[in-house]
Amino acid sequence: MSDYTNDRITLAHGGGGRLSRTLVEDVFLPVLGNDCLNRLNDSAVLNLPDKRIAFTTDSFVVDPLFFPGGDIGRLAVCGTVNDLAVMGAVPRYLSLGLIIEEGFELESLRSIIQSIKDAADEAGVTIVTGDTKVVARGQADGLYINTSGIGSIERDLPVHKGRVRSGDLLIVNAPLGQHGMAVITSREELGFKTTIKSDVAPLNGLIDEMLRVSENISAMRDATRGGLAGVLNEMADQGDVQIILDEIAIPVNEDVHIACDMLGFEAIHVANEGVLLAAVPPDEADRMISTMRLHPYGRHAAVIGEVGDKGRARVTMRTHIGTHRVIDVLSGEQLPRIC
Amino acid sequence: MSDYTNDRITLAHGGGGRLSRTLVEDVFLPVLGNDCLNRLNDSAVLNLPDKRIAFTTDSFVVDPLFFPGGDIGRLAVCGTVNDLAVMGAVPRYLSLGLIIEEGFELESLRSIIQSIKDAADEAGVTIVTGDTKVVARGQADGLYINTSGIGSIERDLPVHKGRVRSGDLLIVNAPLGQHGMAVITSREELGFKTTIKSDVAPLNGLIDEMLRVSENISAMRDATRGGLAGVLNEMADQGDVQIILDEIAIPVNEDVHIACDMLGFEAIHVANEGVLLAAVPPDEADRMISTMRLHPYGRHAAVIGEVGDKGRARVTMRTHIGTHRVIDVLSGEQLPRIC
Repeated sequence: MSDYTNDRITLAHGGGGRLSRTLVEDVFLPVLGNDCLNRLNDSAVLNLPDKRIAFTTDSFVVDPLFFPGGDIGRLAVCGTVNDLAVMGAVPRYLSLGLIIEEGFELESLRSIIQSIKDAADEAGVTIVTGDTKVVARGQADGLYINTSGIGSIERDLPVHKGRVRSGDLLIVNAPLGQHGMAVITSREELGFKTTIKSDVAPLNGLIDEMLRVSENISAMRDATRGGLAGVLNEMADQGDVQIILDEIAIPVNEDVHIACDMLGFEAIHVANEGVLLAAVPPDEADRMISTMRLHPYGRHAAVIGEVGDKGRARVTMRTHIGTHRVIDVLSGEQLPRIC
Repeated sequence: MSDYTNDRITLAHGGGGRLSRTLVEDVFLPVLGNDCLNRLNDSAVLNLPDKRIAFTTDSFVVDPLFFPGGDIGRLAVCGTVNDLAVMGAVPRYLSLGLIIEEGFELESLRSIIQSIKDAADEAGVTIVTGDTKVVARGQADGLYINTSGIGSIERDLPVHKGRVRSGDLLIVNAPLGQHGMAVITSREELGFKTTIKSDVAPLNGLIDEMLRVSENISAMRDATRGGLAGVLNEMADQGDVQIILDEIAIPVNEDVHIACDMLGFEAIHVANEGVLLAAVPPDEADRMISTMRLHPYGRHAAVIGEVGDKGRARVTMRTHIGTHRVIDVLSGEQLPRIC
């Protein structure tokens, strides 16, 4: 007798009994297995290279689960890897918490677990501990994933504090708005057809290169929910500084630009999953840009603005017609469940 | 204008924009705030006492969210604290990932956050990083919580490996079945009235006392989903040993016993959230029991069985009438969403 009803997940797969064990041994361990995870202990015992670490958590509820350029599995790994890397940590270990809706297709689950493995391999991190719960039909939307992550901090760098300084130049690595627009335009109800792909990617390799070039990066953030406008406003608030953007310098691909126009969005407010913003001293910006452009995830690196005077936290933009306007934070996301 | 519609959570509270910030500053930081969390960085930077750590994750989907003896907040802290402590680690830092259903009452959320704070204080752990997502009505059942945890491992103990040895005696700290039966009997649809309270509690203080008495505890597990029968079978499998239980020695409160009888459950299969099982050398068992009984969460400590010969992984029970029967793992939980 099969342990799955019509190749779907049942409530008993989350009950902590025999069928939970089957799910772990059938679906998770053959793909994700390693010395630590295979032990199936209550927690993973790890030896870190250093006593100083970064620790972060993120839950992923993206709709749809599969979108152009990625899926919830790749998203869940990259999102947490990037949250560690932008603090100057070397991402090492991830946990994986699944909340599955009863009736979820086993094949989709297998495919997402494979994505998790591939993204973890690309980022050089290991899934060392996990948990699975199954909720009844109508109590989730297919699958939600939480990943928490531990990174080791091996050098003392200003970026751990994450405070921008007046005079810093602001650099992004890639075109804006790809992830949010890929997810939005792939929702069936919008009946929209584009070729936009999510930028979801682990940025720790690129960041590693960047920290080799300069130890003076004062702050880095990945521009996920809330988009570039969101992180810029956080940076301005935290450093109590003005930030001035150059609209014409901000990289946005043509298809994203068109889709944003049609849907009434602005690319700087749209979620990204492979965009980082770094604040660097002006005399190091050129070398930083050159280095970034050699990396696959930094080919479109550009200076998009600068950090102004202290004492007046706000973000403004010089538009392409030469006027200035204030860039505020949106109240929420334009559409929910982007990440 | 209020940032909440009828004092309920809206989708925009999870959108990463201004209202997300409001929720964090209004509801989370006033209760949970600390130097690390207040920074609101992408990840928390922590200094550990040692390079060796334990790392674990757990998602909580309990129904109802508030049950006799606790709520999902206390459960989410204690569950993860206990998973660290049974591996011999000192629980230090937790992450908090919330998935909230649109329309969730702000007052319930505040109450759960307060529970999280109280349980964290009792356990001596700090919430250092968090994340909140809001999903549309009908895409969750009120609130799901993920906590991941980091504990420091400061001494080298056999319990980190968690392998039982032939001859070990098996000790539990408290009566079985309290949590599962408290949750089940509080579900309105069952129309059941009892005074059973969940045993949900952080066990790290008790475990600390136990490890002071003996460095020879060979394995510890908390008997959550799958109950005592589940963890005993895991212990038997992992150590490839026979385990023999004594039915009359297993502590079960009268009200749980009656409720189990009426609903057709067995207490050894019911979920606990404050029960640990420890395997100790026979000559140290008396002293261990005496020490445990001095602790509020160990008052009912008792030897309930022993580890037999190697090479035949199974769990058997000497019943109160003197017969023997095999104790197997259930296929799932008897009822879903217990923890």
